[in-house]
Amino acid sequence: MSAAARTRPLAVLLTIGDELLLGDRVDTNGPWLGRLLTDAGFEVVERWSVGDSVPAIRGALARMEALAPGGVLVATGGLGPTDDDCTRQGVAAHLGIPLEEDPRLLQALEARSRARGSGELSRLNRRLALVPKGAEQLTNPVGSAPGLLFHPSEGSGTLMAFLPGVPREMRAMAETALLPGLRRAFAHRLHPPFERIILTAGQPESLLAELLEPALPPSLGVRIQYRPSLAGVELRFSAEGEGGEARMDEALERLEPLLAPWRYGWGGETPEGATVLALRRAGLTLALAESCTGGLLASRLTAAPGCSKVFQGGVVAYDNSLKEALLGVTPELLEEHGAVSGPVAMAMAEGVRIRLGADLGLSITGVAGPGGGSAHRPVGTVWFGFSGFLLGENRRATIEAEPMFFPGDRDEIRTRAVHYALRRVRERTRG
Amino acid sequence: MSAAARTRPLAVLLTIGDELLLGDRVDTNGPWLGRLLTDAGFEVVERWSVGDSVPAIRGALARMEALAPGGVLVATGGLGPTDDDCTRQGVAAHLGIPLEEDPRLLQALEARSRARGSGELSRLNRRLALVPKGAEQLTNPVGSAPGLLFHPSEGSGTLMAFLPGVPREMRAMAETALLPGLRRAFAHRLHPPFERIILTAGQPESLLAELLEPALPPSLGVRIQYRPSLAGVELRFSAEGEGGEARMDEALERLEPLLAPWRYGWGGETPEGATVLALRRAGLTLALAESCTGGLLASRLTAAPGCSKVFQGGVVAYDNSLKEALLGVTPELLEEHGAVSGPVAMAMAEGVRIRLGADLGLSITGVAGPGGGSAHRPVGTVWFGFSGFLLGENRRATIEAEPMFFPGDRDEIRTRAVHYALRRVRERTRG
Repeated sequence: MSAAARTRPLAVLLTIGDELLLGDRVDTNGPWLGRLLTDAGFEVVERWSVGDSVPAIRGALARMEALAPGGVLVATGGLGPTDDDCTRQGVAAHLGIPLEEDPRLLQALEARSRARGSGELSRLNRRLALVPKGAEQLTNPVGSAPGLLFHPSEGSGTLMAFLPGVPREMRAMAETALLPGLRRAFAHRLHPPFERIILTAGQPESLLAELLEPALPPSLGVRIQYRPSLAGVELRFSAEGEGGEARMDEALERLEPLLAPWRYGWGGETPEGATVLALRRAGLTLALAESCTGGLLASRLTAAPGCSKVFQGGVVAYDNSLKEALLGVTPELLEEHGAVSGPVAMAMAEGVRIRLGADLGLSITGVAGPGGGSAHRPVGTVWFGFSGFLLGENRRATIEAEPMFFPGDRDEIRTRAVHYALRRVRERTRG
Repeated sequence: MSAAARTRPLAVLLTIGDELLLGDRVDTNGPWLGRLLTDAGFEVVERWSVGDSVPAIRGALARMEALAPGGVLVATGGLGPTDDDCTRQGVAAHLGIPLEEDPRLLQALEARSRARGSGELSRLNRRLALVPKGAEQLTNPVGSAPGLLFHPSEGSGTLMAFLPGVPREMRAMAETALLPGLRRAFAHRLHPPFERIILTAGQPESLLAELLEPALPPSLGVRIQYRPSLAGVELRFSAEGEGGEARMDEALERLEPLLAPWRYGWGGETPEGATVLALRRAGLTLALAESCTGGLLASRLTAAPGCSKVFQGGVVAYDNSLKEALLGVTPELLEEHGAVSGPVAMAMAEGVRIRLGADLGLSITGVAGPGGGSAHRPVGTVWFGFSGFLLGENRRATIEAEPMFFPGDRDEIRTRAVHYALRRVRERTRG
């Protein structure tokens, strides 16, 4: 690691809330802030979660400060109006300063309450006007509770920021109020990393590593990290220090022939976004007939930007009667082969393609469990049907079906099926 | 807090992986383990994430141990075969013991590789046989890498367990190998909490608090925590110490008339599960016509157990042409009122109900953004249509539509619309 990397200011993240320890809530604020601060040029070293208790918050602040001397500590959560929110009290205890009602903030809260037609400020919401003495307030563009900022002082060598726990409020405040302040305070000490994220599908982590590592000269100082998920393996390439960008470019150029067959996207992209893009490039429209995935593939596709250009819609044929009524699958076919079969998958794909006038029809029919499995078709069996003018060796009309087996529980089988379908659509748009 | 509460053994959780700090991955292992250990009777006090680096892991282990003397430290991640996985090295460094290749584990890995048709064990996967000397191994029921367990010793007063980061492997190992071991090791010291989770929708956090807190005598020692989300507000009631269960029962009995109008479920339930249950109780079937939510509501419903009894399927009519082709919405109606309007919402709901032969038809058509908004129909405008034999004052056939406005970005608007629809279906199944 070079000098340039070592001198990045350190950052630690603290998320506050009992629900984060009891397991009733996944923390999305910590990762989001980790990405924001990393991209801004900080080195995020640890991320902690503590419960809603003044001693726990006070203790964590003291110990975390020591992990980021001269850097920044960003905390979220516990700034709300109810009794279990006690971050203000924890900060005040840690810094040894009193809480005071801020008259201007109280006025602003009262005005906001009236403007929203909620009448007088309630007793609980009045608590939001309590602020540790001397704190700088961060404006909340989309909610009531302001954030708090404490510049390094004799009491603490670390800049400390406290943001609300509601993700929408936290993100708006971090982008509009916190980040500009951090850029001013840390200025030339910030060094955004040289990194590239490459999304791959179709090869497991260990085989990718055996493919790539021998082809990457250690002298380039480029590190690869492997992040497997149900969507495939995400590769993070990073190069620290002087000349990192040039060394990164060289590394990626060398690895290009090995990566190309498995790569479907870059950092910031999603599997569904890559599939929508592939369809747009090929000029093809898609129609879906989903059974066991119950609309999950459609909902993923419609979350991607530009989807309306290529995705017209689909049918969620959860019940067999709908496969007949909406897709024209005959009762005889269902009777003879069963709903989870190649012939039915093909009939569903062809039915939805013709009824919707799309270029491609895709169907998914399977046994996602927990019930419904048999020795012949165990839970995890999923048939995919493809119909339409597919691109391949030569552009031709085809109807095909293929079976897959996916391990895991109901959620996992459905998610794996969606990712497999997204990958196969991408592959079929390629010449 | 009573003596019984204070003597629960302490637990700390450590999740290991650069991706958790850089913000490329949300940590689901930490919360899941938090729930498992809390339910088992531990007091989870902190949860940390550190990167894939030997010094970082070593430092975190040393500091976390001090937070849970005589308790348990559970870590996940970094046990895989690739270069960035270095948890084994970090543990060995922390405990001052060497890594050794375990011949029996190596044999098992080789057998597994052959059984899966992968041939000889690869160089990278051979690393999985490296184990810190003296560690007890936890069997991995669904993957290759075993877990590691270190009983309290002179070197450390804390029991330490290391599990894989892949959620499916981690969960299987935690349930089948870790938990039985912890129950043996901590036995009578474990005190599962008295808690009840109640799911509410339709009232904000601060109004619920003002409703409930005055009606709850402090002498009962029952605490309420408020967890707002897009689905509503989740309430966690907890009572510590002697007689907690009886005090909890009394508290919930007193609050029952205040809670009943807003409660839709209990801990472990989901909004979609509660909606499926409400439909089953009312003996009604549902058909969906989704536009802006693009299958999200259908995919949520089909994730709920028992859904096939009440949900037959639906149409994802993302494009206007499908509203005509699959739902029978006339071009004149679309032309006159626009796709996002009451009349079109009603026609969609009626169209899908009749075509699918369901008791209830529900439609969602709106502007989820980022594009497509206008002064007249800003982004966030969503119309809901309801058609069918609804239960109400008296059971009668109705077609209705109602408009809503939801704040937030595309994802948030779609999620809010889905939760609103789930709530309205529940309400309409009530007499």
